[in-house]
Amino acid sequence: MKMIMAIIHHEDEMDTVRCLNEQNFFVTKLSTTGGFLKGKNTTIMIGTEDERVDDAVNVIRENAGKRRAIRYDNSGNLTGGSYTGINMPVPLEVEVGGCTIFEFPIDRIEKF
Amino acid sequence: MKMIMAIIHHEDEMDTVRCLNEQNFFVTKLSTTGGFLKGKNTTIMIGTEDERVDDAVNVIRENAGKRRAIRYDNSGNLTGGSYTGINMPVPLEVEVGGCTIFEFPIDRIEKF
Amino acid sequence: MKMIMAIIHHEDEMDTVRCLNEQNFFVTKLSTTGGFLKGKNTTIMIGTEDERVDDAVNVIRENAGKRRAIRYDNSGNLTGGSYTGINMPVPLEVEVGGCTIFEFPIDRIEKF
Ligand code: NI
Ligand code: NI
Ligand code: NI
Repeated sequence: MKMIMAIIHHEDEMDTVRCLNEQNFFVTKLSTTGGFLKGKNTTIMIGTEDERVDDAVNVIRENAGKRRAIRYDNSGNLTGGSYTGINMPVPLEVEVGGCTIFEFPIDRIEKF
Repeated sequence: MKMIMAIIHHEDEMDTVRCLNEQNFFVTKLSTTGGFLKGKNTTIMIGTEDERVDDAVNVIRENAGKRRAIRYDNSGNLTGGSYTGINMPVPLEVEVGGCTIFEFPIDRIEKF
Repeated sequence: MKMIMAIIHHEDEMDTVRCLNEQNFFVTKLSTTGGFLKGKNTTIMIGTEDERVDDAVNVIRENAGKRRAIRYDNSGNLTGGSYTGINMPVPLEVEVGGCTIFEFPIDRIEKF
């Protein structure tokens, strides 16, 4: 048995937990701060059999790992010069996500 | 040395922690959500010697495990037909509680 | 690899975390209650190589362990007899701090 503890961005919590639940992993969530990720983040804990650890780790990596994403920035419209009346969001490729995953041995899991 | 981590219903937190304290277990509590128990729950952590693990697990099971309980329901008085002026709570046997207990090996516990 | 989990006084959180960061330990923080320390406290978690465990433990002990400190008490001015118009804080040597440190084996730490 293993305990997987992952510290993920709060923005990635919903997708990560939904995907883990779809694969029948029970997830317990804590609100945490600091660490490898600065600021508020979410720590998720999953107890599972050894042979399912890699599946859980893959789901977490896909949903919460560092990755490129397109964000639409329209801050230029607020700070720019003369107002044109046109709201033109600018697509930007940014890096999002990032997670740390710890894997612990567990002696026993019981449900009562 | 072992760490016992138990996810219990928040309703069972007070009794569980009081009984653990009575048996000289120190309990650290976290607010958690989700997992095997849906919604808000409480995670308690106890560090203890190997030979006392079963005592702690028994206390948690008795106070936070699934069990039958009588609840008095008077919602019928609010939603029912003509109001009789009588408040008659109906006893219902319901299932309450439910907990997941993880047991981890610990290399060392120190108090400074 | 080891996980160090330390339950410290919230008053000692800032210094402890700053000193750990200065020594390149990443710290994840949780708000916890109860346990060996009564009331609100902070649980910090650090994943590290075996050979750095003692360094982390020393930093935590120095910043969050039990120690003597001088506190200035002027409650006497509020509860004493006739008011003299003089605010005279009294230096008192008090015991502050106190922490519990758990060290767990970890199978794996990954950053994605
Ligand atoms: Ni974030
Ligand atoms: Ni509940
Ligand atoms: Ni305190």
